Amino acid sequence: MTVRIGVIGTGMIGRDHTRRISQVLSGAEVVALSDYSPEAARKVQAELVPGAKVHDKGEDLIAAPDVDAVLVCSTGATHEPYVLAAIAAGKPVFCEKPLATTAAGALRIVQAEVAHGSRLVQVGFMRRYDAGYRMLKQVVDNDIGTPLMVHAAHRNPTVPDAYHTPMAIHDTLIHEIDVLRWLLDDDYVSAQVVFPRKSSHAHQNLRDPQMVLLETRKGIRIDVEIFVNCRYGYDIQCQVVGEEGLANLPEPMAITLRKQARLQNAIMTDWKDRFIDSYDVELADFIRAAAAGTAAGPSSWDGYVAAITSDACVAAQESGLITPITLPDRPALYD
Amino acid sequence: MTVRIGVIGTGMIGRDHTRRISQVLSGAEVVALSDYSPEAARKVQAELVPGAKVHDKGEDLIAAPDVDAVLVCSTGATHEPYVLAAIAAGKPVFCEKPLATTAAGALRIVQAEVAHGSRLVQVGFMRRYDAGYRMLKQVVDNDIGTPLMVHAAHRNPTVPDAYHTPMAIHDTLIHEIDVLRWLLDDDYVSAQVVFPRKSSHAHQNLRDPQMVLLETRKGIRIDVEIFVNCRYGYDIQCQVVGEEGLANLPEPMAITLRKQARLQNAIMTDWKDRFIDSYDVELADFIRAAAAGTAAGPSSWDGYVAAITSDACVAAQESGLITPITLPDRPALYD
Amino acid sequence: MTVRIGVIGTGMIGRDHTRRISQVLSGAEVVALSDYSPEAARKVQAELVPGAKVHDKGEDLIAAPDVDAVLVCSTGATHEPYVLAAIAAGKPVFCEKPLATTAAGALRIVQAEVAHGSRLVQVGFMRRYDAGYRMLKQVVDNDIGTPLMVHAAHRNPTVPDAYHTPMAIHDTLIHEIDVLRWLLDDDYVSAQVVFPRKSSHAHQNLRDPQMVLLETRKGIRIDVEIFVNCRYGYDIQCQVVGEEGLANLPEPMAITLRKQARLQNAIMTDWKDRFIDSYDVELADFIRAAAAGTAAGPSSWDGYVAAITSDACVAAQESGLITPITLPDRPALYD
Amino acid sequence: MTVRIGVIGTGMIGRDHTRRISQVLSGAEVVALSDYSPEAARKVQAELVPGAKVHDKGEDLIAAPDVDAVLVCSTGATHEPYVLAAIAAGKPVFCEKPLATTAAGALRIVQAEVAHGSRLVQVGFMRRYDAGYRMLKQVVDNDIGTPLMVHAAHRNPTVPDAYHTPMAIHDTLIHEIDVLRWLLDDDYVSAQVVFPRKSSHAHQNLRDPQMVLLETRKGIRIDVEIFVNCRYGYDIQCQVVGEEGLANLPEPMAITLRKQARLQNAIMTDWKDRFIDSYDVELADFIRAAAAGTAAGPSSWDGYVAAITSDACVAAQESGLITPITLPDRPALYD
Repeated sequence: MTVRIGVIGTGMIGRDHTRRISQVLSGAEVVALSDYSPEAARKVQAELVPGAKVHDKGEDLIAAPDVDAVLVCSTGATHEPYVLAAIAAGKPVFCEKPLATTAAGALRIVQAEVAHGSRLVQVGFMRRYDAGYRMLKQVVDNDIGTPLMVHAAHRNPTVPDAYHTPMAIHDTLIHEIDVLRWLLDDDYVSAQVVFPRKSSHAHQNLRDPQMVLLETRKGIRIDVEIFVNCRYGYDIQCQVVGEEGLANLPEPMAITLRKQARLQNAIMTDWKDRFIDSYDVELADFIRAAAAGTAAGPSSWDGYVAAITSDACVAAQESGLITPITLPDRPALYD
Repeated sequence: MTVRIGVIGTGMIGRDHTRRISQVLSGAEVVALSDYSPEAARKVQAELVPGAKVHDKGEDLIAAPDVDAVLVCSTGATHEPYVLAAIAAGKPVFCEKPLATTAAGALRIVQAEVAHGSRLVQVGFMRRYDAGYRMLKQVVDNDIGTPLMVHAAHRNPTVPDAYHTPMAIHDTLIHEIDVLRWLLDDDYVSAQVVFPRKSSHAHQNLRDPQMVLLETRKGIRIDVEIFVNCRYGYDIQCQVVGEEGLANLPEPMAITLRKQARLQNAIMTDWKDRFIDSYDVELADFIRAAAAGTAAGPSSWDGYVAAITSDACVAAQESGLITPITLPDRPALYD
Repeated sequence: MTVRIGVIGTGMIGRDHTRRISQVLSGAEVVALSDYSPEAARKVQAELVPGAKVHDKGEDLIAAPDVDAVLVCSTGATHEPYVLAAIAAGKPVFCEKPLATTAAGALRIVQAEVAHGSRLVQVGFMRRYDAGYRMLKQVVDNDIGTPLMVHAAHRNPTVPDAYHTPMAIHDTLIHEIDVLRWLLDDDYVSAQVVFPRKSSHAHQNLRDPQMVLLETRKGIRIDVEIFVNCRYGYDIQCQVVGEEGLANLPEPMAITLRKQARLQNAIMTDWKDRFIDSYDVELADFIRAAAAGTAAGPSSWDGYVAAITSDACVAAQESGLITPITLPDRPALYD
Repeated sequence: MTVRIGVIGTGMIGRDHTRRISQVLSGAEVVALSDYSPEAARKVQAELVPGAKVHDKGEDLIAAPDVDAVLVCSTGATHEPYVLAAIAAGKPVFCEKPLATTAAGALRIVQAEVAHGSRLVQVGFMRRYDAGYRMLKQVVDNDIGTPLMVHAAHRNPTVPDAYHTPMAIHDTLIHEIDVLRWLLDDDYVSAQVVFPRKSSHAHQNLRDPQMVLLETRKGIRIDVEIFVNCRYGYDIQCQVVGEEGLANLPEPMAITLRKQARLQNAIMTDWKDRFIDSYDVELADFIRAAAAGTAAGPSSWDGYVAAITSDACVAAQESGLITPITLPDRPALYD
């Protein structure tokens, strides 16, 4: 069975997923497109999927009888209504992060899905599909004993002027928030943020770098360096310290070069390259589950927990205090 | 357009390519199967492609009007007749190595393809599709100046009793023979083989390890260690020394673990894991070209040159001498 | 000129320094020994320096006219009186850590030295003499821009039962406290300690691991993991994050071995091996300065600051609070 | 007992050994100097050892009753007569490489020492004292099973115009010739040299790079790349392949830096830095043995074997043939 997919939002990521489904992955085809700019949608249609129908409104695309499943790649504020509409239609839906712009919105999605009675939503936390993190989870689960600490870093070479201090949480740390929960099979109970000396390369409205300290239910302590003007590259580090040993997220594969008095590997500078393979795996997982009328991978509950945790981290940025993080009980649907 | 593929030979690799085409890659479907054991073909049909037709004879599969392109995954001795039949039918054909069991046989394929007038054959040298080798080629072409030497190693943890001395060339070195030609854009002019002290883990009929010394037209000197009872793992090494610097094939991505007084990375032990991703890329390339009625990647000329070179290396094993390698002019089709 | 040295305390470290001076380094000889067990002193005399005189009391050794300089290697509680006696005698004195068992005691030494008017005291913080840290300082001073953060770890495979929670500061962190001040040319303004989930390998009286967060005058944020039951080895890590790049303390030189499906380097398990070379360099520096009647390297001021900082960290362990660290003005002698 | 040493030849290396003995190492003093330029000798005397006597002739220095042991650091052609004179005087003598400028000359020294009846000569093959090679020998002897192959490289960034093709053997490969014999406890039986495409950075009179293939009595096969215009650095590589695993000579300790899109370690460019520590250990070994009236470390037999082997390699350069290497029986003195 070929899953017939409708894509809402045909910007960079929506266009790329359309290409992925139509040219790389088996098992699905893009039969419908929608964008707030119908022009943009028609451009992607012409280029990649001439047979797809362009809908003026996302809601129409969701309702279309020949659409089996939906990808929500539109602007953040529209995610919640589109995902709720897809749930109402009983159709599997893949939603790029954030699931909603507020924790309350994410909770409404969780509640709708729970009311529906089975999973329909996958959130676009692609790091869980990265080969490196999957290898790390293997080793954390089997080789290092009980995890006690995590040392992580999320570094970008530079950010645009519009990037301000809370975005270090909502746009950057959000990936660690999700992937570390998954890696450790745990949840957070408190957050603290400290600000080192500010880099002279940081914009006026941005305190950069930051160090976020998280504590989990199991007592694991996590420190995450966020440094979005680190200049030298896009670099994601993660070390898990267990009772019996330590494991590091692998460095991306690179040529070792000996040249000009340096033993050197290239470091990536564009975040889009770093997890590029994981998008394929992520969508293949969505297609596989959608063919069975359900969803797998990061759930709307994961999206909700990420929202709650982000909010606490932003509060901790502002107060300088150790900020508690409390979650409602997890619905059985997400066990 | 979906390429309709017939697969001849449904053993391990034929079955795996069938799965790849039907479950992983876009753009093609398996519509026909054939095996010298129809039972085996029907088993793969049932498991993976219920809609495919099972042909008793490979020739019938090749001739079937609903088959656009052919995969030859049967036993080595049958490759030549099947590939010739596919060329005669004007259908793109992917042939697992070896292209033919003799250089003369490979040459007959080259001649048939040249007579046909356009490329139809892709040979299954998957290393050219490996991400590591592709990164290496990038760096060799751009960053290290004129290549002068290559140091390579091909190590297996162990081999079955049936593996004898010449197989170190035909089954093992064959991959370096092809991929180094491609990497350096060059051909070989001589081969020499020296035998180090034999490992006590090598079987009676096998001299192991071996060191093969190759010289190219451009004067590059290559040493390849072949060590198929190295015990510790499946390990492929390649270092290119250029006028301005050196580049190494990357180690496969691995978790760095600190445990039991060791800073350690796992080394693979099963060759099937090492280039697993490259099979996907290789077949995607075949599908893309087949959709246009042609073939890309390693050509029948490459298969023929590999055969000529292998024969010279086996002669060098036997004589201990520096053995010249001479090639006919390359037909313009392969420029 | 040969510096004539008296060694007080002939236990493991005193005996080793005696060997070092008499058998490895040029420029000095051990002419006098003293230990609270004269038996022990005579044993080292017989074994290593038959020409040396054994004094019953350290004070006599310090006063002896043929003793130019003094090494204090006795038990911690005796350091302060011996160092004060050496200052009173105007003799250069090398004192193993701690300089004194209290910050008040260390301050008395500072005051005595200031009153004397020139440096006489070197404290045994040997990491400043480690080749790796020296390379790191080179790079931190020249290549990574303004330092903003430090991520460090101090791991021991195991500790004896007597090792309790505050010893993680006084005996373990003390080395990072000193060497990071030197590396960054900075002082601390606050400390915080958080306790991750406790390792099941830790004794009843020990919370292990610990994470110490330090803030410096320049605003640099430092996190130090202390994990003294890490099992896998003795491992010292230090990464400095600067505005333009990052630098890591080198791993100790080790053979890379490929064996048993592992690419592996040995990790040390005995702390005595890790900085073994730095003891030679440290004492050579003492001898060089003592020949000129003065002292170099880590000063009594450094010992005092380490004591103040340690006390704050222990207070932070107990309170869980961010604990301020205040220092008096640095006497000009130590600029 | 302090060994009283006379140094013949006060150029760069003689001056440096004088500094080493007088300022770094214990157990010896330089009491006499000699140079073909007495001016040069007096300059070193004034700078480093004002109490030493300057002799006009090396022979006088050797004969001087207050000289216990001799260092021969003069120009190569003078080594043989000075070493023979020292043996005649029954004094331990350290001789920088080469022991003699011809194999016949080296054999005369061996014969004189054998006639004397005990070891007096140490040859300046300092790599045996390098910490990295010592670690490697440890691992080769214990962890990788029977050695079967060695892959080595000796790379210099550049060489002066006077450096011609045979110097790649006599001045460069000579170090591998000695250290690999020691590492493997073996001798050579044949040599072959092949010339890759010449680097455009090599001078007119120099074929560069070269690959030397050596075979040992035990059947070990060794390939050594010599590349003295490699541009990128001074880089010494050595990998030993054994029946159970592989071991690599460690890279020199270096800071790992992340900067400008590169994960990078500095590579040395000056050969003088690479083995700088081993000179201290080498001379300490000489002093220790000389104090007992004998010599340790690389012997005159080792110097003779190196000469025989070098001559065979140069013959192999010229002929292109596999050139046998034959040695007389080793005198019992060197067992």
